[in-house]
Formats: sequence, structure tokens, C-alpha cells
Amino acid sequence: MSTDPGSGVIDVADVEQAASRLRGVALRTPLIENPALNEIAGGRVLLKAECFQVTGSFKIRGAYNLLSQLTTEQAARGVVAFSSGNHAQGVAAAARSLGIRARIVMPADAPIIKLENTRRLGGEVITYDRATGDREAIAREIAAQNAAPVVPSFDHPHIMAGQGTVGLEIAEQCEAMRVRPDQVMICCGGGGLTAGSAVALESRIPGVEIFTVEPDAFDDTARSLELGRRVAVEPGAQSICDALLTEMPGELTFAVNRRLVSRGLTVSETEVHNAMRFAFSEMKLVLEPSGAVALAAVLAGKVATSGRSTVAVLSGGNVDFERYSAIQIQQSTG
Amino acid sequence: MSTDPGSGVIDVADVEQAASRLRGVALRTPLIENPALNEIAGGRVLLKAECFQVTGSFKIRGAYNLLSQLTTEQAARGVVAFSSGNHAQGVAAAARSLGIRARIVMPADAPIIKLENTRRLGGEVITYDRATGDREAIAREIAAQNAAPVVPSFDHPHIMAGQGTVGLEIAEQCEAMRVRPDQVMICCGGGGLTAGSAVALESRIPGVEIFTVEPDAFDDTARSLELGRRVAVEPGAQSICDALLTEMPGELTFAVNRRLVSRGLTVSETEVHNAMRFAFSEMKLVLEPSGAVALAAVLAGKVATSGRSTVAVLSGGNVDFERYSAIQIQQSTG
Repeated sequence: MSTDPGSGVIDVADVEQAASRLRGVALRTPLIENPALNEIAGGRVLLKAECFQVTGSFKIRGAYNLLSQLTTEQAARGVVAFSSGNHAQGVAAAARSLGIRARIVMPADAPIIKLENTRRLGGEVITYDRATGDREAIAREIAAQNAAPVVPSFDHPHIMAGQGTVGLEIAEQCEAMRVRPDQVMICCGGGGLTAGSAVALESRIPGVEIFTVEPDAFDDTARSLELGRRVAVEPGAQSICDALLTEMPGELTFAVNRRLVSRGLTVSETEVHNAMRFAFSEMKLVLEPSGAVALAAVLAGKVATSGRSTVAVLSGGNVDFERYSAIQIQQSTG
Repeated sequence: MSTDPGSGVIDVADVEQAASRLRGVALRTPLIENPALNEIAGGRVLLKAECFQVTGSFKIRGAYNLLSQLTTEQAARGVVAFSSGNHAQGVAAAARSLGIRARIVMPADAPIIKLENTRRLGGEVITYDRATGDREAIAREIAAQNAAPVVPSFDHPHIMAGQGTVGLEIAEQCEAMRVRPDQVMICCGGGGLTAGSAVALESRIPGVEIFTVEPDAFDDTARSLELGRRVAVEPGAQSICDALLTEMPGELTFAVNRRLVSRGLTVSETEVHNAMRFAFSEMKLVLEPSGAVALAAVLAGKVATSGRSTVAVLSGGNVDFERYSAIQIQQSTG
């Protein structure tokens, strides 16, 4: 990435600046409460509904924060990104609103809604075979040919600061509601959303506990936090959570998360399914699998919620109806 | 109904009092905005998400406002209601929170989610055959046996005032967002939600236009408004909108709506399907058919939205997945 990432360290001022840049571009999504969920939790649970965000996930926050800081010379060459879908849409939307060309490398088997929306937002999609292709190599080649920057999906200070506006809004919205959250549950792929949000939350709500939530098979952050150093997932890992298939925490994100995250939690595929069904029937919310992991952790009792105030981030809702239906129907059969 | 309905006329003070009674019982649901919808409308569209309300629809507002004003003597005998499902859940939840017994007559073919939730909330459900039974007669008989009041679903000042808190919140939330809505679209069965909301809206936002929205086949309010007197729908009318199958406007509700509603709009079943699909894929919201009619009217261009600010009420989200899936899947085939 050719924008200056400085030292790679961000503080709350970076997140606040990102928030001003995002005004009028990203939505301030609501913090939702559900009586049935409160009853199950035995405490108050507030849900940050990033499924309502522009592009259906939080990703536009980081993408726009980075793209809006490119020089006009850089912007003129366009940008390149690789993504399973939500970062793709975030980059495409941010690029469109800034008048920048965006070439985006996506797996051919990404959810159709993510492929279609990326194209609809003006992104030039280049697909590859997830089994045989190396999306990073493809993206780097396209970038080199055009002297264009690659927009990373998490490991960059501008991305972290942009995603961190989720945490900043949580703090502000909790304050307006006069709730002091005890803990915040954040879904974790590469750790950019967690890192940025943790920086903002720690500054605004000192002492608040932060937990990452990953799919069982992609527990790289949980294990890395435990070991105190970055480790990768087992080769061949698979999960329904198509937006959380990151193999290893980012270097910059892990440096932050190591310091600010209490513990890394994981949830099973079944727990994710249950959370998606609960969201449909009780909350009237459409969540994609990756967007449901923090809710899954709450519902499955992975943290103590009784008598406490818990915030969980619902990171996105981009899911094809066919896959969604298969998950919902399991409810009737078992 | 044995509570004193007074003159049957309500004003904004009644709605404000209902709002204080409802504090801590009903949720202040968010007013949601969606960029894709704004783009289609060519203006700003704000959606009052009553699908997030306790019991999944706005009905608890009126039910609690009425039940909380019963005398202890009345309350001791329990209450009786008849409903296709959303009012049933509202009454059951309100009764439970006040420690009142609730017997509720529901059609045997009501959505399973509505039957189950009513029972889960402690309601004693008596089912009847929609084709052959007379739910009102069954309810009146049970009420007479127990000297218990019947809780009407719309045509009562306490019900109107309670449902009117939806309109009051819309006015307050718009003011907080510094938006002056030009028009508010409200789904209409018996007209209680419209009447109460119209009273609050007219008082807080003088001159705001109010439109009712009904299914094509249940256009009793639209036709009654046009004729200036209450008329019923054609016998044998059918609609997917199970919560809006009212045959004639209420006497009290129509007296209000005749004065405050600009025009009655209707939407086709296909327009309702399209709105439900749009809500899923673009807004990540689960809407039941009846909850989608106001959105359907916006999407189908039934009112001018270009350059204007429009509020639409999403009244509920209680839908069985099987029916939901059948509607979503039509998307792929046609």
C-alpha cells in the first residue's frame, strides 16, 4: 500500500478523524435491543446492526477512510483489492463515491449477492478458483501492471481506524442510552474491526472487556492471543462463515488486539446456524453466517451475561437466499 | 368493552399519556434509513421498524394501554380477545406483564409463529375454523361466561391512543434527526394504528400528509375515504396479508381517519412480495406480508417520493419461514 501508514499505531484521534471523513458516506447504524435475547442472557444485550450499513456490512468504513486519503495521483491509477465479498463491496462503494476505478479479485464461489453487488457498485470483478488460485498474487500482478495500490482488507492503520468507527459509535450510543457496557463481542477475521474498535472503546469506556469471536475452525486469533504470538489455522480449515476465513491475524491488528482483547472466543457451525435462526424468528434480522458469530457467542453462553450489559456487533447480512433457506429449514428437521 | 371509552375521541394528550404508560414495556423502535431505497425513491425514506417491537409487531402498544387502565376488579376476571395473531400476541404480552389472564380466539390456520408465540406469552389460545366459525361470537360467549371484557383490536380510544405512540415516536425521532417528513405511509386494517398516529402526527407536524396502505382486495378504508362513509370489502376477499383482513373500517377510527388521512392507497400481492424480497436482500429485514405494504407502496411509486421525505411504518415481522421462503424463491423463477 503506498499511502503512508506511519508507525502502524493508531489512537482514538485517528478513529475520530475517520468518523468525520465517513459522515454522509457510511450510516450511523442503530444499536438494537431485543427482549427475548435479554431474557435468555439474563442481562442487557445491545446489538450494533452493521447489517444495515451501506453495502450490507461494516467494510465501507475502512475502505472509504483509506481511499479518501489517497493522493489524486494515486487515485488516478485506480485501486486493486481482493476479498471474499464484503471488503469487495466496501471498496467498490467507496471508490464509486470518490470517482476511483476499482479492480477487485474475488473467489468464483463467493456468495452471488456479494459478486452482484460489487459489480452493481461499479467494481471490476476478476474471479479466481479458490482451490487452485492465489488471489493475493493475482491482485499484486494487476496492481503492478497499473502501478495501482492494493487496498488491504485489515492490516493497515487507515483500515483499522475506519472500522474502529464501529466501536466509537457503540461508545457514543451507549452513553446516550446511559448504559455502561461491561463487554463488547466483535467478530474477527484479520482483526481490523476489533483493533480499531478496541482502541476507541478503551479510550471512551476504560476497563470495558473486549472479546473476539471466530468460527471454531478459524481460531487463529484465539490461539494467537493465548500464545502471545501470531499463529495460523490448520491447513484445509473450512467454515460457513465466508467473510471470516482469514488464516492468521494481521501484524498491525494483532499488536493492538494482543494488548486490548481479553480473550478470543470461538463458535461452532451449529451455534452460528442457531444464531441466524434466532435473528430471523425473534429479531426479524437477516444475518449472514459471519455476521452472526458474536450473537452466537452470546446465545451459546460463551461469556457471562447475567446481570451484565453486553454489546455484540452484527457485522453483515449479505447472504444468498438459497444458503439462508437451507440453514433456516434445519430448524424444522432438527 | 367495559372500560370507559369516553366520547371515543382522542387527542394528542391521550397519545402522550399512553407513551408514558408504555415506558419500559414497549420498545422505542428505531427509524431506519436505507441508501438503496433512498436512491429508488429519489428522496429520503425513513422506516419505522415495528418489526423489532416486543411481540414482533406494534400491537402491544394498544393492548397494554388498554389493559393497564382496567380496574383491579375487571382485571381479576381476565380478558378475552380475538385476533389473527399480532393483536393476540400483544394482548398476551400485555396481560402477562400485568398479571392478567388472557383467553384468545385465533383462526386455526394463523401463522404458526403467531400461535406459538401467543401461547409462549401465556395466552390461552382457543382456535376456530376461519371458514365456518365466527370468532367474534366465540369470544363474546367466553367473555359473557366469565364476565370478562373483550379487548378490541382497533375500535377503542385506548387502543387508538396506544398505537398512536408509533406516530408520536416518528414525530420525535424525525425532529431529533432534523427531518421534516412530507408524508407518512401507514398500513391499515381496522385503522387504529393510523388514527392514533395521525392524531399525534398532525399535532406535532402540522400539514404532514398521511396515507393508509391496504392490500388491493381489502381496500375498505380506501373506498370508505373516497365515499365519505364506511363501506365493507367484497365478500370472499383474500390476501396474503393475514394481519390486514379487516372487512370494514372501525366507527371510531374512521371518524378520525376521514378527517386526517389524505388518501387511501392499495398494493397488489406481487407488490407486497417485491417489498418483502427487497427488505431481505437490501435492508436485511424480515417483514411479514402485512408489515411490508407501506414499503410496497413506496417501492411501487404509489406516492410521489422524489425530492420529498417519506416515512413508512413497517408494522410487523411475524411470518413462518415456509411461507417466507415461497415468496423469496419466486425471485429466482420470475
